[in-house]
Amino acid sequence: MKNNHLLIDPWKIIENTFDKSKVKSSESLFSIGNGYMGQRANFEEDYSGNTFQGSYIGGVYYPDKTKVGWWKNGYPESFAKVLNAPNWIGISIKVNGELLDLNKGIVKHFQRVLDMQKGIYKRKFQIILVNGIEILVEVTRFISLNENSLGGIEYKLLAVNTDCQILIEPYIDAGIVNQDSNWDDSFWKIKSLKKTKLFSGLISETNKTKFEVCTYMANKLFYEKKVIDPLPIKSKSKSKISQSFKIDIQKGKTLKFIKIGGYVKTNVNFPKNPIEEAKEIVEKHIEIDFEKLLKTQIESWKKIWEVSDIKIEGDPKSQQAIRYNIFQLNQTYSGKDPKLNISPKGFTGEKYGGSTYWDTEAYCLPFYMLTKDQSVSKNLLKYRYFQLDKAIENAEKLGFDKGAALFPMVTMNGEECHNEWEITFEEIHRNGAIVYAMYNYLRYTKDFDYIKEMGIEVLIAVSRFWAQRFSFSRDKNKYVILGVTGPNEYENNVNNNWYTNYIARWCLIFTKEQIKKIQKFHFKDFSRIIKKTNWNSNEFNLWDEIIKNTYLPYDNEKKIFLQQDGFLDKELIQVSHLKKSERPINQNWSWDRILRSVYIKQADVLQGFYFFSENFSLEELKKHYKFYEPFTVHESSLSPSIHAILASRIGMIDEAYKLYLQTSRLDLDDYNIESDEGLHITSMAGSWLTIIEGFGGMKITGDTLYFENKLPKKWKSLSFKINIQGSLLEINLSKNHNNFIWKGDSKVKIIINGK
Amino acid sequence: MKNNHLLIDPWKIIENTFDKSKVKSSESLFSIGNGYMGQRANFEEDYSGNTFQGSYIGGVYYPDKTKVGWWKNGYPESFAKVLNAPNWIGISIKVNGELLDLNKGIVKHFQRVLDMQKGIYKRKFQIILVNGIEILVEVTRFISLNENSLGGIEYKLLAVNTDCQILIEPYIDAGIVNQDSNWDDSFWKIKSLKKTKLFSGLISETNKTKFEVCTYMANKLFYEKKVIDPLPIKSKSKSKISQSFKIDIQKGKTLKFIKIGGYVKTNVNFPKNPIEEAKEIVEKHIEIDFEKLLKTQIESWKKIWEVSDIKIEGDPKSQQAIRYNIFQLNQTYSGKDPKLNISPKGFTGEKYGGSTYWDTEAYCLPFYMLTKDQSVSKNLLKYRYFQLDKAIENAEKLGFDKGAALFPMVTMNGEECHNEWEITFEEIHRNGAIVYAMYNYLRYTKDFDYIKEMGIEVLIAVSRFWAQRFSFSRDKNKYVILGVTGPNEYENNVNNNWYTNYIARWCLIFTKEQIKKIQKFHFKDFSRIIKKTNWNSNEFNLWDEIIKNTYLPYDNEKKIFLQQDGFLDKELIQVSHLKKSERPINQNWSWDRILRSVYIKQADVLQGFYFFSENFSLEELKKHYKFYEPFTVHESSLSPSIHAILASRIGMIDEAYKLYLQTSRLDLDDYNIESDEGLHITSMAGSWLTIIEGFGGMKITGDTLYFENKLPKKWKSLSFKINIQGSLLEINLSKNHNNFIWKGDSKVKIIINGK
Repeated sequence: MKNNHLLIDPWKIIENTFDKSKVKSSESLFSIGNGYMGQRANFEEDYSGNTFQGSYIGGVYYPDKTKVGWWKNGYPESFAKVLNAPNWIGISIKVNGELLDLNKGIVKHFQRVLDMQKGIYKRKFQIILVNGIEILVEVTRFISLNENSLGGIEYKLLAVNTDCQILIEPYIDAGIVNQDSNWDDSFWKIKSLKKTKLFSGLISETNKTKFEVCTYMANKLFYEKKVIDPLPIKSKSKSKISQSFKIDIQKGKTLKFIKIGGYVKTNVNFPKNPIEEAKEIVEKHIEIDFEKLLKTQIESWKKIWEVSDIKIEGDPKSQQAIRYNIFQLNQTYSGKDPKLNISPKGFTGEKYGGSTYWDTEAYCLPFYMLTKDQSVSKNLLKYRYFQLDKAIENAEKLGFDKGAALFPMVTMNGEECHNEWEITFEEIHRNGAIVYAMYNYLRYTKDFDYIKEMGIEVLIAVSRFWAQRFSFSRDKNKYVILGVTGPNEYENNVNNNWYTNYIARWCLIFTKEQIKKIQKFHFKDFSRIIKKTNWNSNEFNLWDEIIKNTYLPYDNEKKIFLQQDGFLDKELIQVSHLKKSERPINQNWSWDRILRSVYIKQADVLQGFYFFSENFSLEELKKHYKFYEPFTVHESSLSPSIHAILASRIGMIDEAYKLYLQTSRLDLDDYNIESDEGLHITSMAGSWLTIIEGFGGMKITGDTLYFENKLPKKWKSLSFKINIQGSLLEINLSKNHNNFIWKGDSKVKIIINGK
Repeated sequence: MKNNHLLIDPWKIIENTFDKSKVKSSESLFSIGNGYMGQRANFEEDYSGNTFQGSYIGGVYYPDKTKVGWWKNGYPESFAKVLNAPNWIGISIKVNGELLDLNKGIVKHFQRVLDMQKGIYKRKFQIILVNGIEILVEVTRFISLNENSLGGIEYKLLAVNTDCQILIEPYIDAGIVNQDSNWDDSFWKIKSLKKTKLFSGLISETNKTKFEVCTYMANKLFYEKKVIDPLPIKSKSKSKISQSFKIDIQKGKTLKFIKIGGYVKTNVNFPKNPIEEAKEIVEKHIEIDFEKLLKTQIESWKKIWEVSDIKIEGDPKSQQAIRYNIFQLNQTYSGKDPKLNISPKGFTGEKYGGSTYWDTEAYCLPFYMLTKDQSVSKNLLKYRYFQLDKAIENAEKLGFDKGAALFPMVTMNGEECHNEWEITFEEIHRNGAIVYAMYNYLRYTKDFDYIKEMGIEVLIAVSRFWAQRFSFSRDKNKYVILGVTGPNEYENNVNNNWYTNYIARWCLIFTKEQIKKIQKFHFKDFSRIIKKTNWNSNEFNLWDEIIKNTYLPYDNEKKIFLQQDGFLDKELIQVSHLKKSERPINQNWSWDRILRSVYIKQADVLQGFYFFSENFSLEELKKHYKFYEPFTVHESSLSPSIHAILASRIGMIDEAYKLYLQTSRLDLDDYNIESDEGLHITSMAGSWLTIIEGFGGMKITGDTLYFENKLPKKWKSLSFKINIQGSLLEINLSKNHNNFIWKGDSKVKIIINGK
């Protein structure tokens, strides 16, 4: 644990100190968002210290020209990146001419509180400015869960030791850059600015992608609770709109400033001038009643928590962590728009380009599927369906044909935008997770509509890919998959990664079953699909051959499935023997050394044991867990959760608990000293899985949901809810008592601890 | 063969047509140089068409900031690149105000001739300018083999159809760029310009590396063979010096202009103002007697050809090709300076950064060793010795210690400057070739001095690297080398590349022998080395263990050494089954497809069979050649020569001949449609090897040199010379007669065709 300056509280994240070296990581940790837009916890007022400014709009990206050493055939031309959007939160303040800047003067008191229950972020500080004037500032900020384009700030300023003159200058600023730009391209072009008494709006357009966005604001001033309306000093520059107000305030009195603002982006379906739409929002909230806005916000979050909340008694650290994870997952993806998805860093940083990875299907889907309306997880599935054409194109670029699809490793719009050959071209197991998500959706929701209407096309295209990607080894007399990177990215270009071979084969089996089901029960759909995909039942011949003869590396002596061919040639030195100074190995070892070592970045064979647990006995699971865990360095945020779940299943609860803390408090405690870059959003879904499937032991078989009480020692009780097949199921587990409560009817049978 | 517009001639390269699309490739093909500087065959006068301007100075490089997708630990910060140097050849010409530009007007006649025997490049053309004036131009150019810093141009201009006024403007220009700059950095800074009546000099300095170079020129004008001295119109800009002369010439009369020029670079050993040195050169040639300069040039080349020439009767194409190869090798490396080396493209292009690769040791050394004074090949060995410290640092960056060295894959100054992990970190077999070159030098020259004085330190450091890089596989109960790229770069991160394992083991054996020899016969050296390297005889224990238990992949059924583990899992489809449209595969297939395919870029197992031929029977060689050749695509210029030699050895002379043409005429016939980027200099050494070791069948064992007459059908006879142990040996092979002639004494025994 590298960070322990945050207080433990069941519902709040609290920082009580001002440490300049922690500003950037706190900017990540106190990020707020609503799935449509997101804002790092940058200060409203100026700050001359080290900061990472970040405001993001879902789905607004830029195809940055690929940066690469030696170009290889098939590399994507560009890397789509989420863009740092114009700043709408800015409020510049001068006190008797002295700029308010927390990097200067003496900070007497500083506090941040993120109230997760209410969805409100507060900041309070008292500072003696360089000119000796002492002021107390209290800021409340939210991004509306109710209205996509609305954010609000209440900025209160009290003169502590003397009368003074305040110059307050709210602004919107489009002169922003990305930290991770490859070629210093400019990303935004300012198109127009509009300014009325109440409203300021700035239209900017992204270069190349032509997303048009209106960044807007409207303001209201109070002095000692009374509205005041001083004459503004307007100012417009090429990329910035601001207006300043000069107000004299008396010692002990408070100036209150309210600002609403945010982004309206052009909607291709309803082409409307975004500036007009922004003006409508402002007119709707013409009164700018901040208390009312907060009330709505609290109500919206209440509805979320009614289903999503997990209660843990006896361990506030665990309690705080899981609520933080659930809170961030809800801030990142609302599920309203099938064109949006969940980026590994959500709206809290630029790394990973704000793009979609396999994280969505492998980790995130269950959370949204079981805590939201069914339409939300269906939208996640549709996201891939809408990108199927591009996945087919992508496969064609790599030499596949006849409708085979390879979904991209990283994407914003369906096109591949990653450019390391060992990942882009070889980490093909992602195609398997996309199918697994459909299977997962089907078994929990029993909703076959998605598959028969859309998903079956994805299944056929993916299975065609696998059928072409397997090759026949005369030497082994089996079908093999050569040259891949598995989930463990600390191996590149290996042959017969067990996980990849296994899930590839499984995709063929699952697709075949679905085709047969549609042929039998939905013949109209079947005819349409056959026509659209040119599918021919002869394709089953090769699929069956492969299913029958898939090579899966196995060591007869150890009775272990091997991560890949040649795995046992490595020096089998356990992680516990590594020096501390060598960890994390990805920051201390050269890449070749990592590759030839035995160390596993994240669950690989064990990921397969997690996905397909019904196919392996508890004995087999134990054997494999005990073999692979000692070699696993968990240098991916996605790793500890899967190990935690499996450790719970085999009764290693203490180990599971340790791994749970590692995954759920990864950012709060800054395990990897990288929270400053943004939060690990997708791995937060892993924390949720750890509780539900690990300590709660949830599994589904047919119409029966199984739970097992596997609570860590410290936990007195655990309660959570599952939204399944239209009904809400509450599970309560404690030392002496386990029960469940249904809200609404359900055909699902519940068995807890075998009863 | 993609190019057949060049005429076949035993001593000359002749181009008789002006084809704008071929200008860039001819600029490469007609390049001239002297191992110190080099010049692409750019036109002296202006040319507005497609051109690739290139002037290079040996050893003058720039560390261009590395361009890479995702940074990996251990990557070099920069990529050292040879710089495009200031232009000294420029002569701008206007005829009655109209710019002479071969891209405009009507070219009535155009010819280039590169006279390899004399080392002189000539160009002649007749053009009707846009203004209707017809002129005939004849240009002669050379770069002196005798004086490092001297080049000369004679530019003759005849007015064909009318009197006219010529404005002739010789210039030197430092406003040049590299085509392959990563970040558009500027490479040169102009420091000063100097201009006297006779002399113009421009000092520029490379950024970062601070190489100081004086580019200079001096001129002389003749009208109808009489010196004239018109008043020059001087002109200086920030980066260019020029002077113009206006001369009226009559129809049928000739204006002749002579320009000498080139580069003087600051010599760290003799710190002298380079501008003063350049002035001295000009003063020495104050008369600028072009005929005299040409005479010296012809004499210098005569001396080279006396030893280097290879005579082939009956096949002018083969004859022309080998002379072209020998000519270019001599233009690239003179062997005078152990800080210089042989870049894959020599001084004919920017690709490969003008840096040193393993090509030098694996391909080039024998040519220089056996056609030059012994000091030349010794300098090539010293080059690595002088960079040993940096090779040890390089290994340390990758986690090795105790004096282990990994020489860089690509280097200019001893630092690694390549940045693809699969090459930089994993193509470690280069360490083996460096040792092999020492062995090769030793067995031919019998000169042990280099090894005992310097080389032994390299041997110990390299062997330490191998001893650490081998790891023990309990599964195989053998020492293995995991995660490498072999000579065949169409495989990455493979385990147990046979060639790498074999040469690594051999290095340990060879080093041990040399240490023992020094210990026994040169005890003083031994003591010094032990002290300097901290070597301890206990190190032999692990070396012996590895030597005894090296794993070498082998298939018992096919009785074939396997290129690497898992090779037989591939689909063994021969190259002949590939569609033409798919070749070359590196331009048509994505990288993953290439990697999992069976196709071999260049000799890999067979490279080992070539190096260590005495360790394998002819039967084994045949078996392996016949197994691997059908899978080899020869998409490296270094591949066909090795296959040609081996094919000769097993009596497949027709195939060897085909491969010989491919390697020796690679650029002349532009097989890979890339001559425009520069010539494949290092592979030209492979052509020489093909003749000497292939068709001449040369081998050495102890004190005996063996030759075998393996002439291709077409060849009536083959004669070549070998400079061995201070004596010159002439070998003459023909259908009916083989003989040898010694010039000087020699202890070497000669056996031709077993006699």
